[in-house]
Amino acid sequence: MQSPAINHIMVNGIACRHLSVMDRGLHYGDGLFETVACVDEKLQFWDEHIERMRHGAGKLGITTTAIDYFKDDVLALLKTHPISNCTIKLILTRGVSERGYRSPSPQKVSRIVLLSALPEYLDEYFTQGISSCFCRHPLSQNSALAGIKHLNRLDNVLARNEWQDEYQEGFMLDDAAHVIEGTMSNVFAVKNSELFTPALSHSGVDGIIRQQILAIAQELNIETHIVDINKQQLQEMDEIFVCNSLIGIWPVNALAESRYRVGPLTLKIAWALQLRIHA
Amino acid sequence: MQSPAINHIMVNGIACRHLSVMDRGLHYGDGLFETVACVDEKLQFWDEHIERMRHGAGKLGITTTAIDYFKDDVLALLKTHPISNCTIKLILTRGVSERGYRSPSPQKVSRIVLLSALPEYLDEYFTQGISSCFCRHPLSQNSALAGIKHLNRLDNVLARNEWQDEYQEGFMLDDAAHVIEGTMSNVFAVKNSELFTPALSHSGVDGIIRQQILAIAQELNIETHIVDINKQQLQEMDEIFVCNSLIGIWPVNALAESRYRVGPLTLKIAWALQLRIHA
Repeated sequence: MQSPAINHIMVNGIACRHLSVMDRGLHYGDGLFETVACVDEKLQFWDEHIERMRHGAGKLGITTTAIDYFKDDVLALLKTHPISNCTIKLILTRGVSERGYRSPSPQKVSRIVLLSALPEYLDEYFTQGISSCFCRHPLSQNSALAGIKHLNRLDNVLARNEWQDEYQEGFMLDDAAHVIEGTMSNVFAVKNSELFTPALSHSGVDGIIRQQILAIAQELNIETHIVDINKQQLQEMDEIFVCNSLIGIWPVNALAESRYRVGPLTLKIAWALQLRIHA
Repeated sequence: MQSPAINHIMVNGIACRHLSVMDRGLHYGDGLFETVACVDEKLQFWDEHIERMRHGAGKLGITTTAIDYFKDDVLALLKTHPISNCTIKLILTRGVSERGYRSPSPQKVSRIVLLSALPEYLDEYFTQGISSCFCRHPLSQNSALAGIKHLNRLDNVLARNEWQDEYQEGFMLDDAAHVIEGTMSNVFAVKNSELFTPALSHSGVDGIIRQQILAIAQELNIETHIVDINKQQLQEMDEIFVCNSLIGIWPVNALAESRYRVGPLTLKIAWALQLRIHA
């Protein structure tokens, strides 16, 4: 399914659809992004998204001051273009520099906000589950970048290009054959009423909804394992579900040749997540 | 050393300094680049650069038709701005798309040419060698992306940011502690008159000058080993040198606490490279 067209864009606080060709976001993927759902005029988990971007910027050595202005940008865009439900993508790059990998000093970062319609996913993805596959393209491994939502996303692009419309998500493995995440989601699974999710020590994005689900599991006293999981182990689980900020939780009803029910722990966690979203 | 300011830019054949904020080069690093030296009005190893970009585009599934137009772009820019010596950076991205990792179909790629002054490196880097270090930031490992000069270059940025002006290059290691390349160069070393260079099966860029040096070594009957090399093995070499399209060859005279002479095999290969450049 193609997402709806982008509607409104702001660059460094100004309505604008273009960026300097010298921006390091283009040259090196030298930056970070966040995808925030706005539903019924509420920015879901805004503070958590901003906190993750601040943490990522710290790790990459990108100046963090501008992050505070994202909220003003978004509110200004939503005031000019009142939309109750939309997708908000925030991009922070290390900005323009002269040729070469070396960071400019001081940095004049680029702050980009893109406001678009929410993707029109079918209700049945949530109620009946989705169909999924294993991707052949491996995820890059790098302990220093793992967890960070940076702009080096060629892996996700190449993995997503392995299918058209026959699946709703594909699972990516690292070179060591561990399942790490979906192309656009984190993955959880249930076995004997215990929760499992891949460790992200060498690859993958530390998703906001993943963090929420781990907190929910703790609240509900669900035994949780953050571990390496291989293909066979994932396929032998009782329940599988994926999550991200736009979909919330989607149960997986098919993964390659295996079939799954929309199970009780998935539903319990999905319900608790809805409560957090609407808190 | 900061590189000189960019002079002239062309986007899709038109003089322009801006790109759509929706370009996938920015969002995902979904593209490729080449850095070509123009010296005395000659585009050095142009065909090899274009061939590498075509090969990379094939691997990433990016439409290759537009690659043929880079030559016209460059000649047009050089006609408008006659400069005998300059750096030419070519960028090819998968172009603009709507939200999401999935590639648009058909692709309307973005073709960017940036023309800038050659970096003003000191002659002594070539004649007396450079000082270098080992970087702490590890290179990402991914057998499917290794060798390709793609736009996911956060590793190089983070490694280069580990020092200011005290070194001219830093060596990057993968998570398995193999030395792979410099932040902006490939690495060669000599031991007992035999040539060594790291295997690039899991990380690193398959450099144009690296390819030339391997061809030179074959012509000169120099025994050559493309192998995994760890830190200690590199430090115990007789000669070390780095190479890229702008510097040609720089001997390394210092790597961490070790010191090296500008050795005979380095000079022999550097001389043969000059002959190829001026052929």
